[in-house]
Amino acid sequence: MSNHTRIEHLGKPRVLIIGGGFAGIELAKSLRDADVQVVLVDRENYHTFQPLLYQVATAGVEADSIIHPFRKIFNDQKNFYFRLADVEQIDTANRLVETSIGLIEYDYLVLATGATSNFFGDKEMEEKTISMKSLDDAVTLRNTILQNFEKALQVDDEEQINSLMDYVIVGGGPTGVELAGALSELRKHVFPKDYKELDFCEMDIHLVQSGPALLKGMSEEASQKALKYLEDFGVKVWLNRRVKSYDGYTVYLDSGETMVSRTVIWAAGVSGSPIRGLRPESILKGNRLLVDVHNLVSGYDNIFALGDVAAMVTEEYPLGHPMLAQPAMQQGEQLGKNICNMLAGKPLEAFNYNDQGSMATVGRNRAVADLKIFKKEYKTQGFIAWLIWMFIHLISVVGFRNRLVVSVNWLWSYFTYDTGNRFIVGNKQVNIPVEETISHKAVV
Amino acid sequence: MSNHTRIEHLGKPRVLIIGGGFAGIELAKSLRDADVQVVLVDRENYHTFQPLLYQVATAGVEADSIIHPFRKIFNDQKNFYFRLADVEQIDTANRLVETSIGLIEYDYLVLATGATSNFFGDKEMEEKTISMKSLDDAVTLRNTILQNFEKALQVDDEEQINSLMDYVIVGGGPTGVELAGALSELRKHVFPKDYKELDFCEMDIHLVQSGPALLKGMSEEASQKALKYLEDFGVKVWLNRRVKSYDGYTVYLDSGETMVSRTVIWAAGVSGSPIRGLRPESILKGNRLLVDVHNLVSGYDNIFALGDVAAMVTEEYPLGHPMLAQPAMQQGEQLGKNICNMLAGKPLEAFNYNDQGSMATVGRNRAVADLKIFKKEYKTQGFIAWLIWMFIHLISVVGFRNRLVVSVNWLWSYFTYDTGNRFIVGNKQVNIPVEETISHKAVV
Repeated sequence: MSNHTRIEHLGKPRVLIIGGGFAGIELAKSLRDADVQVVLVDRENYHTFQPLLYQVATAGVEADSIIHPFRKIFNDQKNFYFRLADVEQIDTANRLVETSIGLIEYDYLVLATGATSNFFGDKEMEEKTISMKSLDDAVTLRNTILQNFEKALQVDDEEQINSLMDYVIVGGGPTGVELAGALSELRKHVFPKDYKELDFCEMDIHLVQSGPALLKGMSEEASQKALKYLEDFGVKVWLNRRVKSYDGYTVYLDSGETMVSRTVIWAAGVSGSPIRGLRPESILKGNRLLVDVHNLVSGYDNIFALGDVAAMVTEEYPLGHPMLAQPAMQQGEQLGKNICNMLAGKPLEAFNYNDQGSMATVGRNRAVADLKIFKKEYKTQGFIAWLIWMFIHLISVVGFRNRLVVSVNWLWSYFTYDTGNRFIVGNKQVNIPVEETISHKAVV
Repeated sequence: MSNHTRIEHLGKPRVLIIGGGFAGIELAKSLRDADVQVVLVDRENYHTFQPLLYQVATAGVEADSIIHPFRKIFNDQKNFYFRLADVEQIDTANRLVETSIGLIEYDYLVLATGATSNFFGDKEMEEKTISMKSLDDAVTLRNTILQNFEKALQVDDEEQINSLMDYVIVGGGPTGVELAGALSELRKHVFPKDYKELDFCEMDIHLVQSGPALLKGMSEEASQKALKYLEDFGVKVWLNRRVKSYDGYTVYLDSGETMVSRTVIWAAGVSGSPIRGLRPESILKGNRLLVDVHNLVSGYDNIFALGDVAAMVTEEYPLGHPMLAQPAMQQGEQLGKNICNMLAGKPLEAFNYNDQGSMATVGRNRAVADLKIFKKEYKTQGFIAWLIWMFIHLISVVGFRNRLVVSVNWLWSYFTYDTGNRFIVGNKQVNIPVEETISHKAVV
């Protein structure tokens, strides 16, 4: 398709934002009163609150309550235009982006395309594991977990049962830790009631971390405490191990150990998702785009990158900022201001990351938090950290209605030790050809 | 697959229930204390509250809030077993049901398989229209509606735009009326804000009803008022018309009129969903199973049918009871009692339908209700009927958490004139090959 797509021409500079994650949304918002046309392109029609994907996967909150339609977020913003499209490549010479719905012109292009799972070239791993980057991934994992137990009911070989009931999570960052914690809570409080015919002593949850500590980047206290919480919950944490290979059934660690599981969750590496058409010199290792302190992509004067896909290499952050919501949102907001500065002929302000700390929750009453408030550090673990985690995540979910729905779910889970959303919906699940190996024994 | 599936043998009579709709659930509940083993088989792992499917389709409530996992509903019922499976056929001679997970034996078999859309043999209609029978259908319709508008933004031919923005609903029963009302409210309050670039004066909603009145089976007052409400909302109601054919683009009525629409919703006929293996003499027109006053299928002494799939032909109901939740639930409960009676050697009680009336909602503050309380009839339309409709549907949704979530949604919509769940999720949508016909004009 080579025709231009149909977007009203306002006679104003057009800021074309690719990707409606944290960075893209903040930028669009901060351009609310700017004399520009804001065009947001995304392949979904909604913003996803990624930090709670693991709760969708573990039936803690409704899938719909952590997403928010772009058109609704920007209902009242007059200069905002949305297009649902896949972006194919950039034609920088002609200031055009090629998309699935046609060509879109830009004056300023902003890449806020986020990150994807990095399988380091291992195709088999990519095919046979489940990631945790999109709503689709989360629903797929939820469906897979629930289907596994339904299938385990049909099996009488012990190894087969284990392969269906055991889980291996690769990666000991926040996603891996939070998933392992949530799964072990389900194992304790929920699954045994739902599947009385299964023996949940048989359900193993493995967490494999390549480094010597969990939650890399957080304090030693946080990482120690997270490890302790997980071990208390009965999670088998494998430190200093890498998954060498996985054939859909057996997981081989580089240390020689093996485990059997039909469900391996990939929460290990991520890499940026840049788009074709940029000069290769601008693309660093890990597929991030080298940007200056104004988020300008190196070698261009009107192409910016924000968030996970941007690597702003500074003395303090020689590999760029951590791939988290906070720097993404702050960069988005800053770039909004700088675009206004540019249009007004004013000097640009350099981005200065205000790190407010980080946190992760392991389960009920158990979280770890390294907070930075007015540059002072506060470390806390346990109940208080858990309350702070809940509060911050609750207020960060986009949309008042969503906040109410998430609150209902959390209060409900807290008081009933139960989560409500154990549905197998759609046909999304990792295809487990268990039929081939199951012997349907006549027990009736 | 010819092996027996693996279900614990309790040495008690097994009641095998196929289908977890209103009838199946009520039966399983009423067998809570019976000295039997209850096995429920369904192709989903959740119960669907069908009366609110139209609200999922029109982004009024979360998909997850009108479904409830069977295993959770029956968490505390010791004699309850669930199996996720497709039922293939019945082997009545050997008291076996063939399923996708193997053979399941029964002592008493209960068919509560509900109804499916009846296209009266028109394959093209079946392929090209959207039904409203399952959660999948509802999500498909929601996705399709939202995608249509996204696509309409790319088009400049007026007929093409109309084909994407206009809707034809076939069938003037509760589902058709409720869908038409909800769509017209979205057209007024929501879509114009979301899609500022589209002209919603161009959006037509057609409701085609074969008979002379809407809401067949309700009072004349109700049907007249529903018609008035819809016409006030600007819905084009076509009475005494049938859709003769639909090619995916043009709808041809039997009266000669045509309309262009890429989205036709089939809410017209339904027929029972019986299962292969029963004697043909037991199957009536419309695929319902002829049952006696104890819901026993004619010609068998241990096979029952409940709800939509059962036709209990009596003097008062010569075509069987209406295919609604109420008779299904009441039959389920009655059969539970009668199974206990059978086991105790007591005489069975005949089913006696306690018709409490029926209702339908057209939109905010506008519903129609024909109530029967202690055999006295009360007819009401408007605000009071609407409050009653909401109250009854709210308390009928299974699960306290769901009730809270639905309440939040309804209160939210009421005060904001907005619905929150405008997501295109998964890949479920009726595939509209609009690209072929769109000319991407260079407007940029």
